[in-house]
Amino acid sequence: MTDLLADRLAIVDLTAAYAFALDGHEWDALDDVFTPDATAELGRPLAGIDAIKQRIRDALEPLDASQHLVATQQVRLDGDRGTCRCYLQAQHVKSGGLFMVGGRYDDRVVRTPAGWRIEHRVLTVLWTEGDPTVLGR
Amino acid sequence: MTDLLADRLAIVDLTAAYAFALDGHEWDALDDVFTPDATAELGRPLAGIDAIKQRIRDALEPLDASQHLVATQQVRLDGDRGTCRCYLQAQHVKSGGLFMVGGRYDDRVVRTPAGWRIEHRVLTVLWTEGDPTVLGR
Amino acid sequence: MTDLLADRLAIVDLTAAYAFALDGHEWDALDDVFTPDATAELGRPLAGIDAIKQRIRDALEPLDASQHLVATQQVRLDGDRGTCRCYLQAQHVKSGGLFMVGGRYDDRVVRTPAGWRIEHRVLTVLWTEGDPTVLGR
Repeated sequence: MTDLLADRLAIVDLTAAYAFALDGHEWDALDDVFTPDATAELGRPLAGIDAIKQRIRDALEPLDASQHLVATQQVRLDGDRGTCRCYLQAQHVKSGGLFMVGGRYDDRVVRTPAGWRIEHRVLTVLWTEGDPTVLGR
Repeated sequence: MTDLLADRLAIVDLTAAYAFALDGHEWDALDDVFTPDATAELGRPLAGIDAIKQRIRDALEPLDASQHLVATQQVRLDGDRGTCRCYLQAQHVKSGGLFMVGGRYDDRVVRTPAGWRIEHRVLTVLWTEGDPTVLGR
Repeated sequence: MTDLLADRLAIVDLTAAYAFALDGHEWDALDDVFTPDATAELGRPLAGIDAIKQRIRDALEPLDASQHLVATQQVRLDGDRGTCRCYLQAQHVKSGGLFMVGGRYDDRVVRTPAGWRIEHRVLTVLWTEGDPTVLGR
């Protein structure tokens, strides 16, 4: 039972580590979040940790600030694999403008020798509000 | 101690399961969230799981999307009973319009043979923003 | 392992207890959140629990309602000390007006005979939205 709880909290930790890596522009911290060969759908399909980092960097580096608030995590475990789904509200700030993205992350996670990692993440955008030009749209 | 932690996380899980049941229109998933004879105050008083499901369904089925982000859970345990309170930001989306409801859920929870369940939930609305006609008001 | 999980959840609990103390105007509940000699940066530097309470009270007492939604907690433990960082969205309501503050709390926490407490908290405001006169600005 204890191990299940520890696993579960470690997986929830990934969702927070991702958020703080993005908003703190600590791109290499994502090495502790994703497997090296992770895939993701973040607006477009991405294969490999380098492609994921580059996509995020291109989106966030031009901004003045961002805040990826994640909550409502739902973890399902099956031995060394699992899924985690959570909600996000990602606020993007530039030159006094704001653009909020409300969405859901659906993750497949896997236990590795170095700890739990995301091997696949899908972002589903549910709503947006504010000025989309903040993200260069 | 371990059991207390497991209980606590199981109760927090109820708040997430409720959110994803609502936003995914998986009404019968609420059978794993509430006791059959649960009561609730969701804008109006409701008695029994069927009345709760119907109320939620009537509110959410006409929408294009919704997102019940829940966070800030505070659990208090007393053996096989407990309370849980948390915050929500519920975004409602229809025809390009948005209506956000910020509030608090106050739950009474009970341990059943099938696991922890909510036996009474009160929604307190703290603020709203956007277009209330999204919810048909 | 169990103790680490219990410590971690106790520290996350502090972030929720703070939120509900503020929004419920239960100022003395902050005695269970901070050490007596805690310091904080909440817009200005504060030293001691009384100064922290007064600052919060001055800001929130004039309002009709507030909601400090906290989420995305990241806890790091080192024996009897630790750090916790989390995101907040603090909605402030007065006379129909809204003022939202999005930010981050960075906490230093310490284990005391009475349980974990915050000994230093820094609020970093990341974005705001709405009517700042709600907070008397």
